Amino acid sequence: MNKIYNPTKETWQSILKRPTANFNDIEETVKGIFKEVQTKGDSAVTKYTSLFDGITIGNIEVSENEIKEAINLVSDDLKNAIQLAKSNIEKFHAAQKTAKVFVETTEGVQCWQEKRPIQKIGLYIPGGTAPLFSTVLMLAVPAQIAGCQEVVLCSPPDKSGKINPAILYTANLCGVTKILKVGGIQAIAAMTFGTVTIPKVYKIFGPGNQFVTVAKQLATQFGVAIDMPAGPSELLIVADDTAVPAFIASDLLSQAEHGTDSQVILVSTSKELIDKVEEEVQKQLEVLPRKAIAEKAIANSKLIFVENDKIALELIDEYGPEHFIISTKDEDFYVRNIGNAGSVFIGNYTPESAGDYVSGTNHTLPTNGYAKNYSGVNLDSFLKAMTFQKISEIGIQNIGKTIEIMAEAEGLQAHKNAVTLRLKDLKI
Amino acid sequence: MNKIYNPTKETWQSILKRPTANFNDIEETVKGIFKEVQTKGDSAVTKYTSLFDGITIGNIEVSENEIKEAINLVSDDLKNAIQLAKSNIEKFHAAQKTAKVFVETTEGVQCWQEKRPIQKIGLYIPGGTAPLFSTVLMLAVPAQIAGCQEVVLCSPPDKSGKINPAILYTANLCGVTKILKVGGIQAIAAMTFGTVTIPKVYKIFGPGNQFVTVAKQLATQFGVAIDMPAGPSELLIVADDTAVPAFIASDLLSQAEHGTDSQVILVSTSKELIDKVEEEVQKQLEVLPRKAIAEKAIANSKLIFVENDKIALELIDEYGPEHFIISTKDEDFYVRNIGNAGSVFIGNYTPESAGDYVSGTNHTLPTNGYAKNYSGVNLDSFLKAMTFQKISEIGIQNIGKTIEIMAEAEGLQAHKNAVTLRLKDLKI
Repeated sequence: MNKIYNPTKETWQSILKRPTANFNDIEETVKGIFKEVQTKGDSAVTKYTSLFDGITIGNIEVSENEIKEAINLVSDDLKNAIQLAKSNIEKFHAAQKTAKVFVETTEGVQCWQEKRPIQKIGLYIPGGTAPLFSTVLMLAVPAQIAGCQEVVLCSPPDKSGKINPAILYTANLCGVTKILKVGGIQAIAAMTFGTVTIPKVYKIFGPGNQFVTVAKQLATQFGVAIDMPAGPSELLIVADDTAVPAFIASDLLSQAEHGTDSQVILVSTSKELIDKVEEEVQKQLEVLPRKAIAEKAIANSKLIFVENDKIALELIDEYGPEHFIISTKDEDFYVRNIGNAGSVFIGNYTPESAGDYVSGTNHTLPTNGYAKNYSGVNLDSFLKAMTFQKISEIGIQNIGKTIEIMAEAEGLQAHKNAVTLRLKDLKI
Repeated sequence: MNKIYNPTKETWQSILKRPTANFNDIEETVKGIFKEVQTKGDSAVTKYTSLFDGITIGNIEVSENEIKEAINLVSDDLKNAIQLAKSNIEKFHAAQKTAKVFVETTEGVQCWQEKRPIQKIGLYIPGGTAPLFSTVLMLAVPAQIAGCQEVVLCSPPDKSGKINPAILYTANLCGVTKILKVGGIQAIAAMTFGTVTIPKVYKIFGPGNQFVTVAKQLATQFGVAIDMPAGPSELLIVADDTAVPAFIASDLLSQAEHGTDSQVILVSTSKELIDKVEEEVQKQLEVLPRKAIAEKAIANSKLIFVENDKIALELIDEYGPEHFIISTKDEDFYVRNIGNAGSVFIGNYTPESAGDYVSGTNHTLPTNGYAKNYSGVNLDSFLKAMTFQKISEIGIQNIGKTIEIMAEAEGLQAHKNAVTLRLKDLKI
């Protein structure tokens, strides 16, 4: 771990620098597969599933029977856990519904805003070592609340041609309308263009490796929206002497085990706490099954000492962490003033893993400094805001002249004329 | 105008096809200028301003004196018009503020969502024949309501090195913090990387030609967010015998005068109306100053007859128009059921130009079918939703076991451990 004491402001940028991924070398691969899926559809999807996942699959759509089988395979304990998590995520996201915004801006000029669902969405759930059924909850639950009509889920098959039962169980529980055994670039391409088996969608959500990340970026060039740009996961903790070093260490490690490129930062006004946390990290690290991964991330981690809360806040705001844990005496100072963070965890008994799974907040959050300009996934991510206006005869007489003057000043005579004709009609 | 009667569903896609722009040939130019601005800053900006705008400017920042001069140059009529528009836009966007969403999802588990401003934003306002001060209103007014701290506006200088007075007047009125005489690719690049004179921003808003469009897309690769992808402006009108042909024609033409690539579509259940509108368009077209532009757009326009409202709705939803005018007997049918549209204009006295300028709704809207997956610009475009959670000792005991089970099932032991440690601590 790298200890840094009182860094000067000029050095912040380099201290807080994230690893910059160079995607140029994989961009050509991604483009090639997109082109092939666009022209050849399902047969290209099957080809790349064989190539990348090492299995040739006849029917890539998950059947009713496979779902029944999966339901039997998931333990009751896990089912209950998933259901409690679902219930909390539902409560929090349902509360985000907004009523129609209605304003009569001028007499006779009625304007309103309504949100309507994005009709077709795609969820990407990675395979690999960690079967992310929690991400299914985070994406499918708000999609269902929003009223999305088609919810397509793609996830790569394992070597035996199956998707993890917990993923299938959760997808089925949360109203996913179609589940497909397809992963990687070919999954994103298929949801972008549509194939006979895989529907084209309007927006793609979900995490993935660098190939999936680049594929999602490329999808946007073909009219598909994506949840947000992705980068390695991050945690920044601000803590002082009121924090429990063992808790802080456990939170840093739970971030570190995500991947060797995970970003782990502790900012503190206490040198003593920094030393204690460092010790605790070493102790806890020893017994972790994913020690090899966590160890590498921890080696790059930073423990930063600063003089006071004000400097700490400024530094944290400059970083804009995805996850931000506050474990200080004056927690309100940070809660009130933090400008850039994805999700904030407050106090000694709020570990990041609570938000990853059960508290109810969404765990799909902006990384890589995107907390400065992007929201995490929330109910609105599955909706579009549309505006409406209805102007009465009185209304157009009230604002008509104004429109005419502005249109004329912008040199748009036909815009003016659309009003002039109506005003004349009303004068007869 | 192209009249199409009862098109079969199989042909909809080709009838409703938008022109696909090929940006490959200008991408290299855009990348080159980005690189130069990134490395050389202001001197590169000055160089490209000379090259593209034909003027070498010493101080690119608009001074207090220039703003005073501009205020004097704008007529009182136009000032009053701009102020009424501003007031309506303010009312409608201020009403979009959302309260903190607070939910105790489980006893002791408090979650909330708050929106905080994107701290630094950039507005791009094109120069050229139409000085779009209305777009300044549409972007700067909600930015001010959102509480964005830095609002930078870039607009290209004319041959005498000035920005149109109405743009300066409006920018000053709406709290823009810095105005710069820079346009095109170099403006977007400068706001992406920052130069000595031009601040780096977190999100860029505003329309522009194909160079600006590609530059905004490229900006997203450097961590900057943009309002939405851009395409040529569009209008789709659904009208029946209750519509006034002259009004419909004037609306089609006000869309057509935007550019030769503007998309203009009329869908109707009345062949008679279609014929009458066609006649009216020819008549009104003759006297338009921008006839040459409008004529080309009209030549590509489509008048589509369908049997009934149900088919009309399905076709319109498939298109997803940026602007959608409803001028039919049963307008509620469309208002209730339209799933994909940017902004909707209802009834005989609601021309699109009302929304372009004064009604209060935003005129920065999704084109090119993006109404299926993007909102138009609204108050939330200038904010990020952040989530917070605070869990008490009771709360972690209520959900701790659930987190442990889920973390274990995902193979993330350190995530589990962060909870186990806390639960143990509470049992002592």
